[in-house]
Amino acid sequence: MLSQTVVKRLKEIVGEKNVVTDKVGLLTYGYDGTLLSGEALGVVSPTTTDQVVEIVKLMNEHDIKLVPRGAGTNESGGTIPSQEAIVISFTKMTKIHEIDTENFVAVVEPGVINFDLQVELAKQNFYFPPDPSSFKASTIGGNLGECSGGPKCFKYGVTRDYMLGLEVVLPNGKVIQTGGRNFQSEPGYDLTRIIVGSEGILGLVTKVFVRILPIPRAKKTMLALYDKVEDASQTVADIVAAGIIPTTLELMDNLLINTTEDFTHAGLPRDAGAVLIIEVDGYPEDMDEQVKTIGEIASKIAKEFKVAQTAVEVDQIWTSRRSAFGSVARVRPSYGVNDITVPRSNFPKAIGGVLKVAKDFGVTIGVVAHAGDGNLHPLILFDQRNKEETETVHKAEQALCMMALDLEGTISGEHGIGLVKKKYLDKEFTPAAMEAFRKIKRSFDPTNRFNPGKIIDL
Amino acid sequence: MLSQTVVKRLKEIVGEKNVVTDKVGLLTYGYDGTLLSGEALGVVSPTTTDQVVEIVKLMNEHDIKLVPRGAGTNESGGTIPSQEAIVISFTKMTKIHEIDTENFVAVVEPGVINFDLQVELAKQNFYFPPDPSSFKASTIGGNLGECSGGPKCFKYGVTRDYMLGLEVVLPNGKVIQTGGRNFQSEPGYDLTRIIVGSEGILGLVTKVFVRILPIPRAKKTMLALYDKVEDASQTVADIVAAGIIPTTLELMDNLLINTTEDFTHAGLPRDAGAVLIIEVDGYPEDMDEQVKTIGEIASKIAKEFKVAQTAVEVDQIWTSRRSAFGSVARVRPSYGVNDITVPRSNFPKAIGGVLKVAKDFGVTIGVVAHAGDGNLHPLILFDQRNKEETETVHKAEQALCMMALDLEGTISGEHGIGLVKKKYLDKEFTPAAMEAFRKIKRSFDPTNRFNPGKIIDL
Ligand SMILES: Cc1cc2nc3c(=O)[nH]c(=O)nc-3n(C[C@H](O)[C@H](O)[C@H](O)COP(=O)(O)OP(=O)(O)OC[C@H]3O[C@@H](n4cnc5c(N)ncnc54)[C@H](O)[C@@H]3O)c2cc1C
Ligand SMILES: Cc1cc2nc3c(=O)[nH]c(=O)nc-3n(C[C@H](O)[C@H](O)[C@H](O)COP(=O)(O)OP(=O)(O)OC[C@H]3O[C@@H](n4cnc5c(N)ncnc54)[C@H](O)[C@@H]3O)c2cc1C
Repeated sequence: MLSQTVVKRLKEIVGEKNVVTDKVGLLTYGYDGTLLSGEALGVVSPTTTDQVVEIVKLMNEHDIKLVPRGAGTNESGGTIPSQEAIVISFTKMTKIHEIDTENFVAVVEPGVINFDLQVELAKQNFYFPPDPSSFKASTIGGNLGECSGGPKCFKYGVTRDYMLGLEVVLPNGKVIQTGGRNFQSEPGYDLTRIIVGSEGILGLVTKVFVRILPIPRAKKTMLALYDKVEDASQTVADIVAAGIIPTTLELMDNLLINTTEDFTHAGLPRDAGAVLIIEVDGYPEDMDEQVKTIGEIASKIAKEFKVAQTAVEVDQIWTSRRSAFGSVARVRPSYGVNDITVPRSNFPKAIGGVLKVAKDFGVTIGVVAHAGDGNLHPLILFDQRNKEETETVHKAEQALCMMALDLEGTISGEHGIGLVKKKYLDKEFTPAAMEAFRKIKRSFDPTNRFNPGKIIDL
Repeated sequence: MLSQTVVKRLKEIVGEKNVVTDKVGLLTYGYDGTLLSGEALGVVSPTTTDQVVEIVKLMNEHDIKLVPRGAGTNESGGTIPSQEAIVISFTKMTKIHEIDTENFVAVVEPGVINFDLQVELAKQNFYFPPDPSSFKASTIGGNLGECSGGPKCFKYGVTRDYMLGLEVVLPNGKVIQTGGRNFQSEPGYDLTRIIVGSEGILGLVTKVFVRILPIPRAKKTMLALYDKVEDASQTVADIVAAGIIPTTLELMDNLLINTTEDFTHAGLPRDAGAVLIIEVDGYPEDMDEQVKTIGEIASKIAKEFKVAQTAVEVDQIWTSRRSAFGSVARVRPSYGVNDITVPRSNFPKAIGGVLKVAKDFGVTIGVVAHAGDGNLHPLILFDQRNKEETETVHKAEQALCMMALDLEGTISGEHGIGLVKKKYLDKEFTPAAMEAFRKIKRSFDPTNRFNPGKIIDL
């Protein structure tokens, strides 16, 4: 428990209403996108950088650990207070300081929700390319904490590629500004990108310079339906081999088609083995040609190919895709989200691998994937109250990770390591690399105060 | 001087012919793209990672420092043996291990020359976007050491955006593999990008997984000629405001037009105040529209606008641009290359700032710029043998850096800090950030063995 002195000081720093210490209040901050939970000593929601600095200094004085948190939608246990710690929530730092369309930069606070930023940008015909499917809830601070990806990443890259500069409060209470308004502003080494993806263990981000782009003038959304999920993966390979880089190549298997249909009634045929959502963007003049080529390629294998004709149709397709994770909850009470990525050419093999794991361990797995990136999210459905089943699921998850590594992939494409994948990190990296991770952490945070126990143990 | 024992061991490791210890041989490795020089204790050219490991271990045993070197074309003193050290030259590690067009990856050794990689990639209709103007000489290892930019960076980003994974020999002699074949392969923090741009002070790169892209199907090259350099900068702003992202927006002023004409006879009018080279790429279908819009925008201000009609014309234009640095040597015996970057909207002000510095200090400055990125290379022409003039030039260079910082820019956009800009780094970064740089360096290289004295002093 926090001492009265600490609580009093916290309230002085951020104001009474921005400190939570009651049991029920704390409970809400004990969860994230995983099935894990923990209980924070307290929750504090600063509204300025100065307050963040004061909080860090106070925690240093009293030797208390800190768990930074955005919307808490991460899928890796990244915001679980797994050790005695307060949660520092950034959801009240939601100012959009500036949208600078001349320089393709927006300057925002970390608590700004991705969707809210998109709405403001759209008014000026701009957008922020990283678009995790959670974008209606997740924050820019969380997006960068995990280096999130999303459907558009195949063409546009991940969060790290859109971070120009950061204001960061370090564990010693000092504030640094990295980068700037220009993607070339990184003399010395790349302090910006050492923070991006570091899951809150190196510094607290209080301001973000993000790169924004003009909304492409034209866009086309297509659907291809397949008998088998393996067939869909062939189309992915064929499109890329034809030299086309779509914005999006998203895949859902039969299980997901059905669970999302229950939810959205988008009209996806429930008997299809898989659906591929393909989107291209660019200049109006070249859309027809691209759609034609993609149609020809897909139709060689797909049982159906269609181009969305209206904005409503496009919306329905995306609502299906975005509700994928949540939708499976109707089938079984619990689900575990995996996040393996393999080189694209190994994607069909990875699909085969998932089917094999499902069979070997006797578990139900639905697959949703950013197929263009070779990034798969096998969702394992189960009942967490059943100890034995849960055990089996953990084994299946491990098998999925090992399968990805065998295919020259990674155990985590975009959801981060957090608590959940920590035990597999040394399967991907050698002891020397693990030691490099530790050394960097120690050089930033010698007392292991920021998000302790995430990514690596010291 | 190196002891006989060390020389003998080095020869055992890499073979007799890959060790240089004679005065004349050493001299060649004492220079880079700047006017600085130094003398190495010896030069060793490994051909395998194992040899690199052996060399590092040997240097650790004998407490000898190491300066990594690619082609030595950097403009920041980054490869000058400014302290007692051996040079480790990567120019004999030139294997292209693999070109994997399915996954958009090439796996290369660090000594591969950028141009040589482009030639091999082109055979398969692929390319590597980072294209420093030195690309016919500079190496992939050097490109990543500096996080180099180039004309294509406006649309495609800098070297860091094309680094998927690295094999790195650390100062402790251990080898790590970062990233992988996929841009999502960065769980934990981003070890790849902490090395990219670190100018050889954190690790020796022995293998590089680079991201490659299919060559765009169509490309158009345009020239716009202006009375005044300020006018050209207006076109840059106007094109971007129209929502067009050209591949390239390169600017040269009257001085550079003339010096490059002496060299290349490309037919640029010698009385023009500035030339803008504009290139767009994409699908054939959208080229006409883009060229038309750009032509309309440019013609509002330019005194002449033309579209290159033949490959030969395009070649001539690029030969001019690429010979810019060297071409000024006919005017005065020495030149200093600056590398300031400002937010694009401040580009016209930066041009004004350069003209002011030239006037204030009474020095001759030619300007060549990646204008789309707000990256300027003011070239100060002088005679290094004249002490007083050289003094003045250094003051002018400092004034340029301060001007860039005043305009929310950076002292170095793409050429790195090395020795040359080291003294200004704390003008751009706060003491806390400088300390972060030092801590990271110490965590990798506690004995300051790798490229000591570059970027920061410990
Ligand atoms: C339905 C659903 C769909 C999803 N789809 C995707 C997807 O398509 N792609 C994808 O990549 N992920 C996806 N995710 C995972 C998750 O949404 C993302 O990781 C998201 O970026 C997390 O944002 P958040 O605001 O919820 O961050 P949180 O979960 O609160 O935090 C994420 C990490 O960042 C740290 N952090 C947060 N704020 C700060 C700060 N200011 N300073 C320092 N560290 C900070 C936290 O400590 C934590 O380690 C999905 C999740 C769900 C539930
Ligand atoms: C005419 C001319 C035009 C230029 N145009 C541009 C331009 O358009 N854009 C641009 O950004 N730069 C430009 N430059 C600067 C320079 O060419 C680039 O920085 C280039 O990338 C350096 O490559 P290099 O092989 O010569 O590297 P070097 O100069 O040999 O080394 C560069 C740095 O990398 C380190 N290094 C080299 N190899 C390794 C390795 N294997 N492991 C670890 N560290 C290593 C070195 O220690 C050094 O710090 C230009 C230079 C010239 C002379």
